[in-house]
Amino acid sequence: METLSENTAFGGVQGVYKHRSAACACDMTFGLFLPEEAQDGPVPLLWYLSGLTCTHENAMTKAAAQGWAAEQGIALVFPDTSPRGEGVADDAAYDLGQGAGFYVNATQAPWAPHFRMWDYVAEELPALLTETFAIDPTRQSITGHSMGGHGALTLAMNLPGRYRSVSAFAPIANPTGSDWGRKQLAAYLGDDESTWAAHDASLLMRDKGFNGPVLIDQGASDQFLDLLKPEALAAAIASRRQPATFRMQKGYDHSYFFVSSFMEDHVTFHASALWA
Amino acid sequence: METLSENTAFGGVQGVYKHRSAACACDMTFGLFLPEEAQDGPVPLLWYLSGLTCTHENAMTKAAAQGWAAEQGIALVFPDTSPRGEGVADDAAYDLGQGAGFYVNATQAPWAPHFRMWDYVAEELPALLTETFAIDPTRQSITGHSMGGHGALTLAMNLPGRYRSVSAFAPIANPTGSDWGRKQLAAYLGDDESTWAAHDASLLMRDKGFNGPVLIDQGASDQFLDLLKPEALAAAIASRRQPATFRMQKGYDHSYFFVSSFMEDHVTFHASALWA
Repeated sequence: METLSENTAFGGVQGVYKHRSAACACDMTFGLFLPEEAQDGPVPLLWYLSGLTCTHENAMTKAAAQGWAAEQGIALVFPDTSPRGEGVADDAAYDLGQGAGFYVNATQAPWAPHFRMWDYVAEELPALLTETFAIDPTRQSITGHSMGGHGALTLAMNLPGRYRSVSAFAPIANPTGSDWGRKQLAAYLGDDESTWAAHDASLLMRDKGFNGPVLIDQGASDQFLDLLKPEALAAAIASRRQPATFRMQKGYDHSYFFVSSFMEDHVTFHASALWA
Repeated sequence: METLSENTAFGGVQGVYKHRSAACACDMTFGLFLPEEAQDGPVPLLWYLSGLTCTHENAMTKAAAQGWAAEQGIALVFPDTSPRGEGVADDAAYDLGQGAGFYVNATQAPWAPHFRMWDYVAEELPALLTETFAIDPTRQSITGHSMGGHGALTLAMNLPGRYRSVSAFAPIANPTGSDWGRKQLAAYLGDDESTWAAHDASLLMRDKGFNGPVLIDQGASDQFLDLLKPEALAAAIASRRQPATFRMQKGYDHSYFFVSSFMEDHVTFHASALWA
């Protein structure tokens, strides 16, 4: 593992690291914020999964999360959103290929050799983090924005016991019913739609739910509401009677101004589960 | 004036606006955060001046200032750091020309026709803001980072009564004695060094001081310490017995991770002067 940068931030360290990923068969870069408390022993970890076109860097510089994490004594990890580099398949569209991994293990050509973001986020990166840094693997929670909200919700519901709490900012909530989903799931997983269901937060919420607290924030003026389909997730939460808070936030759009506005609430929400 | 974007943020609005500047004889873009309270009447204004290579956007997206400003009910303005565009002089170096206005009125060719950032920040933009938005011109304070810290300190000491408080993050503190300063002051103002003194925070502090509270944060691991020369400003503060807080912050570098780490302190510091 190579250290690309380390900056003191809020009494802790915001690092950027590069490592060879076996899951993605390429070099992968991630950001990790460790609070001051990590100098004395393992701390809880909050995952932040980013959206379409993002790298590890966007939320790390624009989500204003580190200050709240420092206040709560928890670490933050910012993975990249896809494999990258020469020899990694790509597409001219912003919403397929590099920058758009959708947190699945691709089974179809040309994506299958590298696009295994599910394994990367669910298995490889957590193992690396707990081996390398002062992270307590029994205290993990997960959040994300847009495509990353989709990732957070689908990981949390498919891996019961892994995360103590889950939240999302404007998640892609029903990808099997949206142009943000059908195109990508078909490309990565093939035309058999039965393989898609494990990657749809609304279907998972209806069938499995989550054994822990759930917080969803959605901007009411989000320019992508028709693609995100929050109403499908809200209906699934209601029909399952899943303990959850779903907030439609007046005036907010899809930007990091929305994400940062509610970051304090999300970090505080996760901290109370992580420290329980 | 043209609205380039408006995003709801922390209950207020983060806008980006473009206007024709008479001072700079070109179009200029600025960011303005208005807290929710601005819907009901004029609010105080905190200026944030940015550093070398920055536009209006850097601090607006990375300094994590809006949340604290919202909490205090104050507006934030993020001006650009120089004139820009076709027909505006530039230099291949990152530290001269576009992105490096140094908050002076250039008198020398080829800079004089457009590089009038002093007039822009001291006169034209405040007039535009108070005409157009719910801003209380009697309640203004100023801060900035690096070259912007230089701008904040020199404006504050040269315009007594204008700003109620001044702060800076890692300011260029003694440009007449630094390669971050001598080159630019010579280019913009000419070789007569007597014209430079009004643009050196350490000289101004020694000769004039500031009638109000002063807060300076400087990272002790800043990679540019030899160019910033904080020791000159600290000595001037001490010799004048200027009421001020000067903090050398262990471990912090020159990045926005440093700025954002102490933004709460700076906004709170200014708010107590603005609301006094």
